[in-house]
Amino acid sequence: MQQPNKYTYKIAARELDFARRPTLAAIIDHVLTAAGDDADRNGFGVRNLEGNNWSWVLSRFCMDIIEYPAAYSELEVTTWVSEIGRLMTTRNFTVTDGNGKPLLSAISNWAMIDMTTRKAVDLSAKPEYADYICTLPSPTAMPARLGALTCPSATTHRVAYSDLDFNRHTNTIRYIELMADLLPLESHESLTPSRIDMNFLHESRYGDTLSVAAEIADEACFEIRNQDAVSICRTRIQFTPRKA
Amino acid sequence: MQQPNKYTYKIAARELDFARRPTLAAIIDHVLTAAGDDADRNGFGVRNLEGNNWSWVLSRFCMDIIEYPAAYSELEVTTWVSEIGRLMTTRNFTVTDGNGKPLLSAISNWAMIDMTTRKAVDLSAKPEYADYICTLPSPTAMPARLGALTCPSATTHRVAYSDLDFNRHTNTIRYIELMADLLPLESHESLTPSRIDMNFLHESRYGDTLSVAAEIADEACFEIRNQDAVSICRTRIQFTPRKA
Repeated sequence: MQQPNKYTYKIAARELDFARRPTLAAIIDHVLTAAGDDADRNGFGVRNLEGNNWSWVLSRFCMDIIEYPAAYSELEVTTWVSEIGRLMTTRNFTVTDGNGKPLLSAISNWAMIDMTTRKAVDLSAKPEYADYICTLPSPTAMPARLGALTCPSATTHRVAYSDLDFNRHTNTIRYIELMADLLPLESHESLTPSRIDMNFLHESRYGDTLSVAAEIADEACFEIRNQDAVSICRTRIQFTPRKA
Repeated sequence: MQQPNKYTYKIAARELDFARRPTLAAIIDHVLTAAGDDADRNGFGVRNLEGNNWSWVLSRFCMDIIEYPAAYSELEVTTWVSEIGRLMTTRNFTVTDGNGKPLLSAISNWAMIDMTTRKAVDLSAKPEYADYICTLPSPTAMPARLGALTCPSATTHRVAYSDLDFNRHTNTIRYIELMADLLPLESHESLTPSRIDMNFLHESRYGDTLSVAAEIADEACFEIRNQDAVSICRTRIQFTPRKA
């Protein structure tokens, strides 16, 4: 059986918010970087797939925040692929600080797309990927399926050069930033995220005009829509009061 | 004499643009991270200054691009402080890839501000900083002083949570992104930056409405203004045709 691999990152000064706490976007960025680094190491990362014009795209993501990472802390990300279905893979993560204290548990679901047709690739055509499965259980509840929001959008954003990732889609981190920007500034100081669930429903591309709707109560629900009112990304963030 | 210190970073997949080349913003982010890491190591980084409620702010920056860094490459950043004036310090950078090939030369000027009064601190009150001066010459021409643009602004951006740095200013990297977003997408594929000069004239803060003006010809000049038409940041980017 394949064993989980471990990758170490460090929260940089640039990743701190106005309250000198790492942003949720930066933390998720490190977790997703571990996914890419591990796929590269196993030979099925985007660098290896380029010849085939295939790439991985994130479909669902969730993360439990056991203890919110501190400024400048090390993140030791342990990651393993637990399942490869016909259209979707499941990659898991546990994150500790430099002293082994549990900080985060996360699960991601990925599809492989053909960059030319923009359609999903049938993963049963890649039986060799099964060698990379590690049968450890996922560390938390699967990403929730989130419903549409009914409220109107609060802000708009036109997708520009700096928003694009190497798949020519708006990158995941920018979606998180656009949603975090709708939370009142006081919430970023008084609350700590305890869980985030994200559903990626459609890609968005250069020149699209995105709008962001938010329903903020005990938990915050967001929906990013495009100019045709198609739902692009839905996200729910749950909170606990922030520790002093 | 103090010797230069070296810091190694790696271009991550997340830092690649739609053409799978590192963004200029990501490259400058690594250079500025070295500045912060080196200041921390020498005991005058923002982590040490917090007790005094002082912080470093970037005033001018320039960078020559000798060879544009490749995707996933290592950046070995050598940095040293060559001058400490009453109100400004000069920090220099040379950057090579993992094989010692020269990629970048950069110079930055920093002021120290009191976060409460938002005024510059007189650095002659910190004579012990002189111990950190390394008398090596700066590796390129000093940052140019850039004039105001006369053209109207092309886009606006309201400063939100995700734009703020730990000084509660809009962060430098976001300014670079806002400007890069005004270049035609084709330019990002056909041109390579050869030199960037940046002047930071005023801070911008949460809720400010920034607008970005651009004059794009053989070189690209940008000015970011706030809602009161105050010039916040001026930047010039020079280019060479991109190598195949």
